[in-house]
Amino acid sequence: MSTQTISPDIIDAHTAKSAVDAALLNFLEDRRKNSGRRQMAGLIDLLTEFMAGGKRIRPALTVLGWQAAGGESGESAVVRVAASLEMFHAFALIHDDVMDDSDTRRGRPTVHRLLAGQGADNRTERFGLGAAVLLGDLAFAWSDQLLHTAELAPGQLAAVLPLVTEMRTEVMLGQYLDLEATGELTDDIDATLLVNRYKTAKYTVERPLHIGAALAGAGPEAMAACTAYALPLGEAFQLRDDLLGVYGDVRDTGKSRLDDLRAGKNTTLVALALRAGTETQAARLRALIGDPHLDEAGAEEVRGLFAATGARDTVERMIDDRYRQALRALDAAPFTAGAVTELKHLAVTATRRNS
Amino acid sequence: MSTQTISPDIIDAHTAKSAVDAALLNFLEDRRKNSGRRQMAGLIDLLTEFMAGGKRIRPALTVLGWQAAGGESGESAVVRVAASLEMFHAFALIHDDVMDDSDTRRGRPTVHRLLAGQGADNRTERFGLGAAVLLGDLAFAWSDQLLHTAELAPGQLAAVLPLVTEMRTEVMLGQYLDLEATGELTDDIDATLLVNRYKTAKYTVERPLHIGAALAGAGPEAMAACTAYALPLGEAFQLRDDLLGVYGDVRDTGKSRLDDLRAGKNTTLVALALRAGTETQAARLRALIGDPHLDEAGAEEVRGLFAATGARDTVERMIDDRYRQALRALDAAPFTAGAVTELKHLAVTATRRNS
Repeated sequence: MSTQTISPDIIDAHTAKSAVDAALLNFLEDRRKNSGRRQMAGLIDLLTEFMAGGKRIRPALTVLGWQAAGGESGESAVVRVAASLEMFHAFALIHDDVMDDSDTRRGRPTVHRLLAGQGADNRTERFGLGAAVLLGDLAFAWSDQLLHTAELAPGQLAAVLPLVTEMRTEVMLGQYLDLEATGELTDDIDATLLVNRYKTAKYTVERPLHIGAALAGAGPEAMAACTAYALPLGEAFQLRDDLLGVYGDVRDTGKSRLDDLRAGKNTTLVALALRAGTETQAARLRALIGDPHLDEAGAEEVRGLFAATGARDTVERMIDDRYRQALRALDAAPFTAGAVTELKHLAVTATRRNS
Repeated sequence: MSTQTISPDIIDAHTAKSAVDAALLNFLEDRRKNSGRRQMAGLIDLLTEFMAGGKRIRPALTVLGWQAAGGESGESAVVRVAASLEMFHAFALIHDDVMDDSDTRRGRPTVHRLLAGQGADNRTERFGLGAAVLLGDLAFAWSDQLLHTAELAPGQLAAVLPLVTEMRTEVMLGQYLDLEATGELTDDIDATLLVNRYKTAKYTVERPLHIGAALAGAGPEAMAACTAYALPLGEAFQLRDDLLGVYGDVRDTGKSRLDDLRAGKNTTLVALALRAGTETQAARLRALIGDPHLDEAGAEEVRGLFAATGARDTVERMIDDRYRQALRALDAAPFTAGAVTELKHLAVTATRRNS
């Protein structure tokens, strides 16, 4: 991302990330000092390590939403709210990995695997699962503490809290829809796009932008412009994620490209392949996707079917359509010029990334 | 509990419970109306049924704390905060049952069992677990929404929010200590009392009282008096719970009296028996407690060992000591007379109950 300063008063993307990282580290260090218990310090260390690996996309969007709506002073409160969203995201990821029983995240074992320890047996696996649920719960509680201690003005708090509630509820509904769909493959493309909308587009892009914009006192028009940009871009972001889950390199993505296939994730990519494929191709996809013992050869066969059915190309086209739609929304948005430049830049990195 | 009205302006315990129930039902009904999705409505129904069975001890203590500190007007805000704590408790119980892999709660299958469905296989069990984690997360998010929409005065909010944060963090630490201790039986009585303190005494009694008192603008003296009453009573409450977990009748408690023993819960009762028992008795206890296939005959043998080692009598004596200590604290407390009467009454029901 550009490190150009947009205005003397407005922090640039690089500075924003550093400021959010510093806010998170300070907060965790404070909690460690006040924990009083060895066990709590251990959990905080684990959370600190886990959080070191994030892309900070939600905090970046919070700061950009604020800038887009003309925010000029009170950066420290914005940074703290942005840090709160990142802490909430740590909660969401830790629980997501428990629910999906994933092995790796951000290039390391997942939190429940780390807590279970090496050579885990049934008992330590249960411990890992329970302790990871709890560490996620702590991150949730602490994301709320970060928000409450951001020293927002009463009007800011009143504008932000309903958005935070909806963001939380929406991502949980998205996760639930995802969970329901997992393991039951369908060619219902709309159903997969609905999960995408709740789980990613609203949660990862729209709500962080809204929350940042609300901090700057944005009116309905600016909020609607955030949505017009965020939903197509968020969908494109998730579609890219679906592709990376199958085609990505673990050295870039930090997670195995067998996980989604083994778990039987009913992504848009999968639904498109089932819809476009012959009966034989669809049957083969159903046999392979969701097999917990799927190996690299099986995954390669799935990738071949995604290519042969045209599903991969269709997803690339859908990403491109949505990318363009997001850019068009920016042309009509009542945003500050500097923020528009940054949001365009972000639209590229979110859809063209390899990690 | 008494239904006598303490003052014309102050709601009595029975009215408080009804008011909290009404606030919870209204809130859930609102969320159902705005959910937009069939799946969300289903989750809300499940949560509503789950919440119907609670004793509402934390909301009662919130209202009593407020009354004790001289609260006289603004009942509706107090009721809403009390409802928020009950919603948080739904979150804590749903996750607790996932972590302990319990079968029953409040006389019904636990939430993760209900979500897994009857005749659950491996896949539906994973679904039940994941969906229960999510439903707990939703209850957490909504407890926060109940709090934010209580229309508290700025001073009330500033007094309450740090207490809410500590309450959340403390119960999670308590759960973590409990999880660490489960399955690794020790005769470390202090360690079991430490878990008790975080998991129950502070969470169930001290913090709800504090939060209620803070809503009435309580100063340090009243807050300290809440603690002096709450910690011994809360410990006694948990010690009673430990006994009920082994000796209670499922028709009263709503949960199997094999669950704690099968899970290998390292309660104070267990630690006392291991400490006081002969080597043979201790070895027998270690063989039986934590055996996932323990049957009623095995449980009866454990109960016999709790009696023979004197552990059961010691726990009864500890409950009685703490009950008296809580009453003495009330004698010295700067509380309103009506609230003292109610708190004494509550000390009896919390320590003498059979459910």
